[in-house]
Amino acid sequence: MAGLRVHSVLVTGANRGIGLGLVQHFLGMPNPPQWVFAACRAPTGQRAQELRHLASKHCNLVIIPLEVTDPASIKAAAAQVGEHLGGSGLTLLINNAGMVILNALDNETLEDMACVYTTNTIGPLLMGQEFLPLLKKADQGRPGPALSCSKAAIINMSSYTGSIEDLNLFDTAQIVSYRCSKAALNMLTKCQSLRYKEDGILCIALHPGWVQTDMGNMGDTGSQKPPLTVDESVQGMLKVLSSLSEKDTGTFLSWEGKVIPW
Amino acid sequence: MAGLRVHSVLVTGANRGIGLGLVQHFLGMPNPPQWVFAACRAPTGQRAQELRHLASKHCNLVIIPLEVTDPASIKAAAAQVGEHLGGSGLTLLINNAGMVILNALDNETLEDMACVYTTNTIGPLLMGQEFLPLLKKADQGRPGPALSCSKAAIINMSSYTGSIEDLNLFDTAQIVSYRCSKAALNMLTKCQSLRYKEDGILCIALHPGWVQTDMGNMGDTGSQKPPLTVDESVQGMLKVLSSLSEKDTGTFLSWEGKVIPW
Repeated sequence: MAGLRVHSVLVTGANRGIGLGLVQHFLGMPNPPQWVFAACRAPTGQRAQELRHLASKHCNLVIIPLEVTDPASIKAAAAQVGEHLGGSGLTLLINNAGMVILNALDNETLEDMACVYTTNTIGPLLMGQEFLPLLKKADQGRPGPALSCSKAAIINMSSYTGSIEDLNLFDTAQIVSYRCSKAALNMLTKCQSLRYKEDGILCIALHPGWVQTDMGNMGDTGSQKPPLTVDESVQGMLKVLSSLSEKDTGTFLSWEGKVIPW
Repeated sequence: MAGLRVHSVLVTGANRGIGLGLVQHFLGMPNPPQWVFAACRAPTGQRAQELRHLASKHCNLVIIPLEVTDPASIKAAAAQVGEHLGGSGLTLLINNAGMVILNALDNETLEDMACVYTTNTIGPLLMGQEFLPLLKKADQGRPGPALSCSKAAIINMSSYTGSIEDLNLFDTAQIVSYRCSKAALNMLTKCQSLRYKEDGILCIALHPGWVQTDMGNMGDTGSQKPPLTVDESVQGMLKVLSSLSEKDTGTFLSWEGKVIPW
């Protein structure tokens, strides 16, 4: 992590699982970010207790209310983040919020397909649009041509189950609405990488591994359990982020830094 | 086309462009299908004139009202098709209906993303579910282990612009909502191919080429125009369909039969 010097980071879905793990690891860095924005839907709710506890101990942690499927909520969050940052930009946007519905292909519905797509794909698109000015400002604050996660980056939390080429675990989890949303998120990431290159923003899709979280445990079939702890996944991902450069923008990488086929 | 012996086919978005071209070519075959079902949203509207003219000349052509984003409409269409077929099944389901909105990434909206996804991705999912009994029946009517378009198949009309690996024409058409929907459709096709294999149904995603249709002409930039006529595209695609076997299910092919990277 020596290479990762993040001035500010925003993590969505930050109240639990991988999102909370990311927040904890950023706060625990030898050189922690000046601002860690932890966004979640219900900052005052029971599920954000851990986050509030952290915020009471770390003055660089700010909890931001955010519903990624609501453009007005995203706008309000960007305004609030911008106010905290004063004139400086946002270094890292980590679109981590996501959802899964455990349907088989035969019982997918229009409503479930639309709901999962809105959260997992449209949300990251809207977040990128709304936080673009702050990300551009972060890049401008660190001159030089190269892209890196220490300058300005969008990290979209994808999943290996979104790989069309290497469609895995279909026998145990068809989850077509989820797979389609993640394949589409991968496409969005590639498009963002091409569009935002001129703004100095690196964009990747990242597979966190199969992790022991509420979502990961939903895939527990008895014979197969999530092998990774949140800490292992997050440590791996932060190491990957620290290593990224221009050549990596628009790629789909695992928490171990391996390229995953689309 | 010697190898393609289709007992019955349903084409969505059949009133114009590639859909209408497919209907015309099926009707003009030396051994035309016993039933050609041409589905479109407004069979009595002005845009279905050509289709009505064809139906007045071909007693094996049936126009079916269908809104692919409405589960009730799909259910009614399947019932109507089943009634015509009597005890026999539907050989080919061609999910051709689709839409594009010419947005750049910066001006995509939640509404446009959702609208395009519902038509281009969720529609084909719902169609596959609802027509599954008829497709299974078609397979059962032609015993033997191999998959083919003469037995039972779902053809999802995709697009090269849905290839994440080989993201092309981004400079002239960002169309992120469309690209995301087609990448997701490709994922759906792969999932359908795995799920429906046991039912004897072949599934592919097909790129029709850049064709001189209302949609194709929207990509006309002055310097670049659609090179293909509807006839050329349809002839190529039907030749591809006639050549498909077990090994091709779950692939992404062009109108010339070339494999396109995901």
